[in-house]
Amino acid sequence: MSNYSSYQSMLRKIADIQYASAVLNWDQETYMPSKGATFRAQQLSTLAGIGHELATSKELGKLLHLLSTDNSLSEKEKRNIKQSLKTFNENKKYTTEFVQELSKTISETFQAWHKAKADNNFAVYAPHLEKLVTLKREESKLLGDFAHPYDALLNQFEPGLKTADLEVLFTDVREQLVTFVKKIAAKPQNNDAFMYLYYDREMQWDLGLNLLKQMGFDFESGRQDASSHPFTTNFSPEDVRITTRINEQDINEMIWSCIHEGGHALYEQGLPSEEYGMPSSEYISLGIHESQSRLWENNVGRSLQYWKANYPKLQDAFPENLKSVSVQSFYKAMNIVKPSLIRTSADELTYHFHVLIRFEIEKALIEGLIEVKDLPSYWNLKYKEYLGIEVPDDSSGVLQDIHWSHGSFGYFPTYSLGSFYAAQFWVQAKKEIEELENEIEKGNMKPLLDWLREKVHRHGKFYSAEELCIEITGEKLNFKYFMDYASIKYSKLYDL
Amino acid sequence: MSNYSSYQSMLRKIADIQYASAVLNWDQETYMPSKGATFRAQQLSTLAGIGHELATSKELGKLLHLLSTDNSLSEKEKRNIKQSLKTFNENKKYTTEFVQELSKTISETFQAWHKAKADNNFAVYAPHLEKLVTLKREESKLLGDFAHPYDALLNQFEPGLKTADLEVLFTDVREQLVTFVKKIAAKPQNNDAFMYLYYDREMQWDLGLNLLKQMGFDFESGRQDASSHPFTTNFSPEDVRITTRINEQDINEMIWSCIHEGGHALYEQGLPSEEYGMPSSEYISLGIHESQSRLWENNVGRSLQYWKANYPKLQDAFPENLKSVSVQSFYKAMNIVKPSLIRTSADELTYHFHVLIRFEIEKALIEGLIEVKDLPSYWNLKYKEYLGIEVPDDSSGVLQDIHWSHGSFGYFPTYSLGSFYAAQFWVQAKKEIEELENEIEKGNMKPLLDWLREKVHRHGKFYSAEELCIEITGEKLNFKYFMDYASIKYSKLYDL
Repeated sequence: MSNYSSYQSMLRKIADIQYASAVLNWDQETYMPSKGATFRAQQLSTLAGIGHELATSKELGKLLHLLSTDNSLSEKEKRNIKQSLKTFNENKKYTTEFVQELSKTISETFQAWHKAKADNNFAVYAPHLEKLVTLKREESKLLGDFAHPYDALLNQFEPGLKTADLEVLFTDVREQLVTFVKKIAAKPQNNDAFMYLYYDREMQWDLGLNLLKQMGFDFESGRQDASSHPFTTNFSPEDVRITTRINEQDINEMIWSCIHEGGHALYEQGLPSEEYGMPSSEYISLGIHESQSRLWENNVGRSLQYWKANYPKLQDAFPENLKSVSVQSFYKAMNIVKPSLIRTSADELTYHFHVLIRFEIEKALIEGLIEVKDLPSYWNLKYKEYLGIEVPDDSSGVLQDIHWSHGSFGYFPTYSLGSFYAAQFWVQAKKEIEELENEIEKGNMKPLLDWLREKVHRHGKFYSAEELCIEITGEKLNFKYFMDYASIKYSKLYDL
Repeated sequence: MSNYSSYQSMLRKIADIQYASAVLNWDQETYMPSKGATFRAQQLSTLAGIGHELATSKELGKLLHLLSTDNSLSEKEKRNIKQSLKTFNENKKYTTEFVQELSKTISETFQAWHKAKADNNFAVYAPHLEKLVTLKREESKLLGDFAHPYDALLNQFEPGLKTADLEVLFTDVREQLVTFVKKIAAKPQNNDAFMYLYYDREMQWDLGLNLLKQMGFDFESGRQDASSHPFTTNFSPEDVRITTRINEQDINEMIWSCIHEGGHALYEQGLPSEEYGMPSSEYISLGIHESQSRLWENNVGRSLQYWKANYPKLQDAFPENLKSVSVQSFYKAMNIVKPSLIRTSADELTYHFHVLIRFEIEKALIEGLIEVKDLPSYWNLKYKEYLGIEVPDDSSGVLQDIHWSHGSFGYFPTYSLGSFYAAQFWVQAKKEIEELENEIEKGNMKPLLDWLREKVHRHGKFYSAEELCIEITGEKLNFKYFMDYASIKYSKLYDL
């Protein structure tokens, strides 16, 4: 066996363990009965420990060092080795005990969050979250060598991203987007009462599957289930799972979670399965992942063209609610801009204020400027400041999101990055794909999916996020594209 | 850490891996999309390899040898060590490569079986099954030291059981049961046409959950899903999964699979969770496991008392089908004895002819007297011989059961053992539980469940099957109890 083949088989074994954990996690969030939690936490911790031992083994280290000077490798192989060596060196900073402790704490915190959210009781969650935050601070220290302690955590989701970069970016958000949203607020609001009539669960479910099919989601390589927080996970590019959440009193939840998670899923299904386990079969970063979900959700899904193709199906399914509502009214209703309490149901502009708030909180938390016990009041203060709204209870406030219970600190900013990348890619897609918007209006999503497969999906981790953005659009991430998109679309919608 | 604690933590780690595999298997049979199969096979194979390495590690071997002479241990601890040492020595006979090859071949054969059964095409399945049979013959050899090569495989499911014992037992089945069933066949048959009217899927589902709840199934420690072949699996005593299969044209499938798998599940939920990973938290043997499902399914579920408690619910759910059918007629219909094609829907008497056939086929296959290619014709011949029926196609013939695709050779005989143990336990339960049948008629299953918890479940693997049987009933397994049960019940039903 060549060195490269040995390396491949080691990486595949590590991937097998990680994907097995993903199955256990998926089950935990979809089907697992409540009392299953304790032993599940232990099982996940054991798998995490074994995965970590394999990922930091001497054998792998030796091979990687040998291969890193092997000039006979192809360019793709070289990039795989470079990426794997980077991951290896990062993993080496952790002890197996730390990895297992983190895994177990995450499972327990996740269970506590569920209960706390259901009972509107932050106190149930707080001690677990405290333990987790302590571990994350520790993790940031042991990763070392970063200008800001939060950088180490950001780097896990968006390699290379710095707190300083985000501060510049969010200054733009604050200055440009806040001003723009204020202009909108001065205008009369559109009607969206019909979005909140009774929409039958089963009918919604079938419609969601129909939208996914139209996007090109391959149901032989994936499926959709229900969970309390929609998510995408995968166990290989040939088994991609998404979840949705259906609210019979609000058609929005199903629509946006289906299209959003569908966009994530198309990226996973488009990664080369023959490279299973290799960096060349992995997504680049969460920002790029989110660019795929946001492009489908916002640039496609919140467009008039998309609903010209799909609104008749919706009207057929719910004639009592929608027969007298025109597609234009539906389009306006789904694009209402208005500060609101819940991030996942926010409009595509004020959405970024939610992310901004979490960025500021996380930074302060990791720096140690605030503590877990201060979170509810700090949260409520920020919502008043940026969104002008009172938070009525913790369930719809600080407890609304699952991420912290997963130990995902440094994750939220990638949501905004995703939207900004999406806007920049979208401009390029419209340039390169003939009659793109007409095709969407005809319900033909294939040209767009083909373009994304070609430009993004098939490359795995060959490019960094920055390289990919330059490769596709000729320049680095530029907030201007998002602001232009927002300003053209919403000036028309709100007659600015 | 004491030696015993070190041993416990090693066993728990092995259990974590095995239960993680169980989650992947459960998903494979319930929700996994078709293309997920290839990488799932690889992931399961990796987990099997890691599990095997841990289960045969030098460290564990050393500890077990030390502990096996430690007189300070309690009786339960000593039995755990004895059992673990036995398992360790058996595991040592396998190489990791063999375990991984077997795991991968099983996943592939399972997929092929699914396709072959759906398409009625044995040829799709045959090459995979051939590979698997070759591996099982090899396994029988490497396990060595058995009077008959089939003994080695039996021993995996029913420790201590011998081919020679089964030959004696099945001679009784042939002589006594065949004669008895012939007497029944001479009598006029009861009507069961109303069992095959239209029964709505959702209504059936809800009824099934209701029956499970009444039995004492804890839905916080388990759940039911749908699969093509009903089964029970567990990821700890606090997460027990069962599946059912619903046929809208036949109410029997749901009823019997719910009660049967429910019986298995109650055993798993009754194992002591504080002993997770230890033999003291494991079931004794498949025969004893099956005694729990059969006792609930047949001795309880096919009794008039049980339906006096539950038939009104069924009538309420399906008035069009059942309003003019009395509980006596329903009881007679569910106990029709008649040779049939499909094992899982056979009556409780001819059922054992199905097992007998599989026993004879497996024995011949493992001995090398027949080959995989001969299976369909051999199968059809046996069905003609023992059940007097023509097999119309392989899907309802040799392809009907999942077990061989799982590599489970030596498994079927435990189904008959289970019924025979159940009959023997049932006699004892009626002696020891006051008014047992009256309590069942009132829908109160608690006294029976408490008795099973006390007599069977809580002990884990402390006793062997034979020891347990003696402990509970004062004697070894005795076919007489089953024959008595059958003869009293069916003489009344068929007016013999």
